[in-house]
Amino acid sequence: MEVFNIRSKQFNYQVVVGEGAWRTLRNFPHDRYSSIFVITEGPLWKRWGKSFLADSKLNNTKTFFVPPGERSKSLRALGLLASQLLKQGADRRSLLVLFGGGVIGDLGGFLASVYMRGVDCIHVPTTILSQVDSSIGGKTAVNLGEMKNLIGTFYPGRLVLSEPRVLSSLSQRNFRSGLYEVVKHAILDGPGFFKQLETGIDSLSPDNIDPLLPILPRAVRVKARVVNRDEREANLRVVLNLGHTFGHAIEEATHYRRFVHGEAVGWGLLAISRLGQRLGLLALAEGERIENLVWRLGPLPSIRDLSPARILRLLHQDKKAVGGRIQWVVPERIGHVRVTDDVPREVVEAAFRDIQRFSA
Amino acid sequence: MEVFNIRSKQFNYQVVVGEGAWRTLRNFPHDRYSSIFVITEGPLWKRWGKSFLADSKLNNTKTFFVPPGERSKSLRALGLLASQLLKQGADRRSLLVLFGGGVIGDLGGFLASVYMRGVDCIHVPTTILSQVDSSIGGKTAVNLGEMKNLIGTFYPGRLVLSEPRVLSSLSQRNFRSGLYEVVKHAILDGPGFFKQLETGIDSLSPDNIDPLLPILPRAVRVKARVVNRDEREANLRVVLNLGHTFGHAIEEATHYRRFVHGEAVGWGLLAISRLGQRLGLLALAEGERIENLVWRLGPLPSIRDLSPARILRLLHQDKKAVGGRIQWVVPERIGHVRVTDDVPREVVEAAFRDIQRFSA
Repeated sequence: MEVFNIRSKQFNYQVVVGEGAWRTLRNFPHDRYSSIFVITEGPLWKRWGKSFLADSKLNNTKTFFVPPGERSKSLRALGLLASQLLKQGADRRSLLVLFGGGVIGDLGGFLASVYMRGVDCIHVPTTILSQVDSSIGGKTAVNLGEMKNLIGTFYPGRLVLSEPRVLSSLSQRNFRSGLYEVVKHAILDGPGFFKQLETGIDSLSPDNIDPLLPILPRAVRVKARVVNRDEREANLRVVLNLGHTFGHAIEEATHYRRFVHGEAVGWGLLAISRLGQRLGLLALAEGERIENLVWRLGPLPSIRDLSPARILRLLHQDKKAVGGRIQWVVPERIGHVRVTDDVPREVVEAAFRDIQRFSA
Repeated sequence: MEVFNIRSKQFNYQVVVGEGAWRTLRNFPHDRYSSIFVITEGPLWKRWGKSFLADSKLNNTKTFFVPPGERSKSLRALGLLASQLLKQGADRRSLLVLFGGGVIGDLGGFLASVYMRGVDCIHVPTTILSQVDSSIGGKTAVNLGEMKNLIGTFYPGRLVLSEPRVLSSLSQRNFRSGLYEVVKHAILDGPGFFKQLETGIDSLSPDNIDPLLPILPRAVRVKARVVNRDEREANLRVVLNLGHTFGHAIEEATHYRRFVHGEAVGWGLLAISRLGQRLGLLALAEGERIENLVWRLGPLPSIRDLSPARILRLLHQDKKAVGGRIQWVVPERIGHVRVTDDVPREVVEAAFRDIQRFSA
């Protein structure tokens, strides 16, 4: 097990990664809380709930279920959960345990931040994506209409517990989805981590978690380091958006129905590699390494039918755009990115058309 | 004009109270923002919008209107406003100007705290209640179902501008409503302020703002002092709930339709005076001074038909209850309160029955 310390404006907290992570909850002072509520998804809890409760030794918990899928990240779902909490007697000293992937973490984290103006929560991420990325750094959110994460807060959990065993029940598709984020982290980190992925990526699958064990904490370290330098994204944290600017637009254009998040990031990484090359910032050879690694994870759902004009329109509405200008995170080489808002519209469109040609 | 400095976890800010307060916006660095949005109510903006824009010299603002009334403090209204902001190009560097009473401040402040995970806002309170109370201290909220302020954040404005002139267009009822909060502040503050109200309260009306001019900053000072000692209500700030515990239950029992907020606080102050006397904490003579001052503000809408059993049930659901126990703020004398969770159910019920007997 590895433990990472995260400094936050509100308080400092730990991210525990590795087999046995859930057991660290035994040392958490849960008697300090008036009541404990688990927020999770039905099938996931059915598979892992017992192990989690046995490992963590939590008792007298009440469990609320959220329908799986991005559409649960809504103000409506937030209102329903808050009503249920109230009915079950949750007060300011209650603790929320967010047991699930990105949707549970984002929605549950937002709920924790606003229920009675804030109650404590613990993240127990159960997907690769949430373990290496969304559970760390305190970003919470729900979507509004087509706009992903438009409404949210900065509100970290008191503890993040990432148990890799739980990843063995992921679908092949969700498993792969998380690996795109791991690739992103490796591009940000440098040649060492990137090379490790190039060597081992083909052996990774839900049936074979072992090769993932050294990779997970390495990916977590990348996120932890960036977040520790800049919690509020004023500046440095923006690098984590690598591949996400295009990714979000592609998700929006398909109404969050066609792609799981990581797949959209996969396309986003391909597009930003092309954009980097077209700007003359990224050498051809490095761009090819990035694109090859992405492709080795498998085929991506089609983007053939998406109108480039619509993608461009959606890009300019991106939450991270400031005064209408997009903050592009462009790889210059593996281990180094440049943030720039100076990318001509034509180059953006051309990069998107580049990747569209690869699409089935 | 008086200026109060408020220390907050996020940042420090100023509350400017007095004639000409809006003009201080001229010195506010608004060119730092990408766009400025005013959130307000239609009739209010029609009456005061021009003066405000002339005084503040803000230009290129866009204005969004919220229907007047407590029912606008909803997740639905939040979603609608966020959609409008997005459509009009609001980004992370936008500024929200919250021009209105408690509803606008609470809803708009919550919106500012969660739109793209937080944009700056300025409070321009236009009622007595919001000037002396809700605009200061950073509490934001919307209601959920019958539950007042269940969902919210701590998120102060960058500046609070309280111009008393604007109070002259308040209805007699809303004007009086705010005075109940002023009475609460005077009870917390002490005999000097309380005496000032006993002397001058009958002359106060929307047609005659002048006698209010020395009272407003005095009431603001009470709130500022408490908030500066304890922003997050861990302990000291709870005294501000004086009269509000009963008040909230009465509002809920009548579905927020019968009372404007201050009127419910009026009943709440009467009830807590009785409760204090029944506990033997508050002397009869002091209790009578409190009750007389409340009654001099005029008659209150009826509570005759409310079932004491229902009021008790609602009290125990109060957001400030911890582990089902209510934190009662009980006056011991003018200028001093005691916080206790040790009040027998029978005493609570008896205090409520006491005031019910006074009701038309």
